[in-house]
Amino acid sequence: MSTEKFDAVDVIVAKRDGHRLTDAQIDWVVDAYTRGVVAEEQMAALNMAILLNGMDRAEISRWTAAMIASGERMDFSGLRRPTADKHSTGGVGDKITLPLAPLVAVFDVAVPQLSGRGLGHTGGTLDKLESIPGWRAALSNDEMMAQLDGPGAVICQAGSGLAPADRKLYALRDVTGTVEAIPLIASSIMSKKIAEGTGALVLDVKVGSGAFMKDLDRARELARTMVDLGTDAGVNTVALLTDMSTPLGLTAGNALEVRESLEVLAGGGPSDVVELTVALAEEMLAAAGRPGHDVRAALTDGRAMDVWRRMIEAQGGDADAPLPVARHTEQVLAPADGVLTRLDAYAVGIAAWRLGAGRARKEDPVQAGAGVELHAKPGDAVRAGQPLLTLHTDTPERFERAKEALEGGFDVAAEAGTPTPLVLDRIAAS
Amino acid sequence: MSTEKFDAVDVIVAKRDGHRLTDAQIDWVVDAYTRGVVAEEQMAALNMAILLNGMDRAEISRWTAAMIASGERMDFSGLRRPTADKHSTGGVGDKITLPLAPLVAVFDVAVPQLSGRGLGHTGGTLDKLESIPGWRAALSNDEMMAQLDGPGAVICQAGSGLAPADRKLYALRDVTGTVEAIPLIASSIMSKKIAEGTGALVLDVKVGSGAFMKDLDRARELARTMVDLGTDAGVNTVALLTDMSTPLGLTAGNALEVRESLEVLAGGGPSDVVELTVALAEEMLAAAGRPGHDVRAALTDGRAMDVWRRMIEAQGGDADAPLPVARHTEQVLAPADGVLTRLDAYAVGIAAWRLGAGRARKEDPVQAGAGVELHAKPGDAVRAGQPLLTLHTDTPERFERAKEALEGGFDVAAEAGTPTPLVLDRIAAS
Repeated sequence: MSTEKFDAVDVIVAKRDGHRLTDAQIDWVVDAYTRGVVAEEQMAALNMAILLNGMDRAEISRWTAAMIASGERMDFSGLRRPTADKHSTGGVGDKITLPLAPLVAVFDVAVPQLSGRGLGHTGGTLDKLESIPGWRAALSNDEMMAQLDGPGAVICQAGSGLAPADRKLYALRDVTGTVEAIPLIASSIMSKKIAEGTGALVLDVKVGSGAFMKDLDRARELARTMVDLGTDAGVNTVALLTDMSTPLGLTAGNALEVRESLEVLAGGGPSDVVELTVALAEEMLAAAGRPGHDVRAALTDGRAMDVWRRMIEAQGGDADAPLPVARHTEQVLAPADGVLTRLDAYAVGIAAWRLGAGRARKEDPVQAGAGVELHAKPGDAVRAGQPLLTLHTDTPERFERAKEALEGGFDVAAEAGTPTPLVLDRIAAS
Repeated sequence: MSTEKFDAVDVIVAKRDGHRLTDAQIDWVVDAYTRGVVAEEQMAALNMAILLNGMDRAEISRWTAAMIASGERMDFSGLRRPTADKHSTGGVGDKITLPLAPLVAVFDVAVPQLSGRGLGHTGGTLDKLESIPGWRAALSNDEMMAQLDGPGAVICQAGSGLAPADRKLYALRDVTGTVEAIPLIASSIMSKKIAEGTGALVLDVKVGSGAFMKDLDRARELARTMVDLGTDAGVNTVALLTDMSTPLGLTAGNALEVRESLEVLAGGGPSDVVELTVALAEEMLAAAGRPGHDVRAALTDGRAMDVWRRMIEAQGGDADAPLPVARHTEQVLAPADGVLTRLDAYAVGIAAWRLGAGRARKEDPVQAGAGVELHAKPGDAVRAGQPLLTLHTDTPERFERAKEALEGGFDVAAEAGTPTPLVLDRIAAS
């Protein structure tokens, strides 16, 4: 006889037939899957049943707790500062973490920013930082704590000990059409953030063509689910829903985005990047119990840049070294006089990816210099023949497929449309 | 680059999102699964999406055709007789195939009855026949054809070449909580029956506690789906919905059921077994284009028994050898005077299984003599202390758990309830 507490088929059938899973069923199925007792095909069937029949708030909380229990938990309670982290669901040109982490640390809030690599058309924060000569993503827990105690901000690779069930589950969801289940997306993100031990968390849930969520209602449901999960786990959590119908800033690509982040840290940079960096910093400071600061001033007076330099150097990076530049460029020109009314984030993301900024498979390298540079944003007047975009790559045979991705990706019209606000909504604990 | 026509995730996502699968998607996914290109976890997710979102008639037909195309097809067109087959969805005491196949063959319709073994609480036709000394279930295609040309009836094991995709898929559904999907049940049954090449098919869809379908509406939906599938494939198909709330006849167990079948073939036997045998024989003859015979006469005048003897002997069986008898028996007594108002098919099926008539795992042997004998049927008057059931087994340590299965499995009351008709509905081509 088996010594297992449950039979996987009974758990699958319960969710298939629309019932709540019990705490004991959830604890068992996540643990047994991590141990390999519940087979991949069984978890795949359960995931599909969860996607189609849903889970309620208590089930999702328990599922997340079970994923956290599958691995180690970090503990920042020994720090002399409160902690705050930010998570973005991913977008095109989303380099906000780079100026944001040092900016928040200026105000004596520690920022333990465990990040990932890019896959598909959205970039990864670690890939961007790795374009800085010498910088390394992998830190020991001791190195991470030392950096939070010193400069106060760290952006590094998540250790493999956090929520190992999530890694296994994510790989399965990726091949079984179950990535899109909101309970599973929310618990995947939140299990890592809760296990990481941050005291406050601000979620940037992207909406639009370049985002995982194309639809505002679904994005709002995801945000609400994650805010509830964080709140239930004792993390002070808030979410902003932000527009991702057009790229953030004027660059998409690794070194290109570092360069733009440095402009923001020097008090300049594109206005949308500055606006979102400031909005998220204010939320993080408020969530960490340090509201009311003039955040924007720390960008213009060099305090955020100082933290940046210390943060980069603590991880071996040379903050003064020139950034890599792609060997080849090609321009995409405006087809007519008028106003740029649309520049599609997804099209630009795919183009940057095809130019070499992203990877098709986890084990692929990325090109540090590759990507897309924007010379106009929606709402800007353009003239026929002026450069709209510059494409950057080390491998010029990639230009053709990048340009194909951009076909139909922008519109020039006689009159400007209605501008979309950058921050679409805010979801706080209910 | 892959040379596959589709990506498994796209097919899963289409069904997940409630779309119809195209013919090309269905052909590909069944074939690619058989080849091992679509992984078990991918098919598990697709099965769950099919279970929850359904498939329409054209999709199920195509899915079934794809399963048939995964293997060989038999061809009975060389026979000088029409062919008719019967399939039961399985019940307790369901020995109908044994008298039915020779009975139909009396009227010059060939009966190619490819059968299975029992798993769980329902018995298997091959297990029953194997209690006849010398009888063998495995025949070559040539042996099968010779037998259809001679005695006109053959009950044998389905070759592994028929619908191999179904075997693989069934094993997967069994461990992933997706057995209950009507499109998948229907295509599993019908792919084998269509590949087998019968010209006419009568389905006996069981309803009630001892059946796979407990509910009349679901049973009707399954019957309708299978009749449509058969019709679309050119097989003249009809279904009877029949009661399985109480066992068929007075025996459940291998040799016990052969003994009862011989009583029917000798013109006697329990009235419900005779009624259903005759009803199904009339349907098979009508579907095969030979309606209007006095079927019952062939049971009483020995013609069906003659075909039985030739059929058993053609497969090496000794039709005159005594049948195995279990070494131990124990009785279950009526607790009070009154009328037996309920004798639960599922309880009797589980008891027979535990006594050794069935198997827990595919590779287990069965006891030929084990099972349950009924001394009363619902509606019969009983007296306190009279034997209600006799339990048979070679391994008396099994009595205890068999009696546990029967607790609460019958009711004796002061007055008789309303009798349930045996044939509940009939579903023909629409």
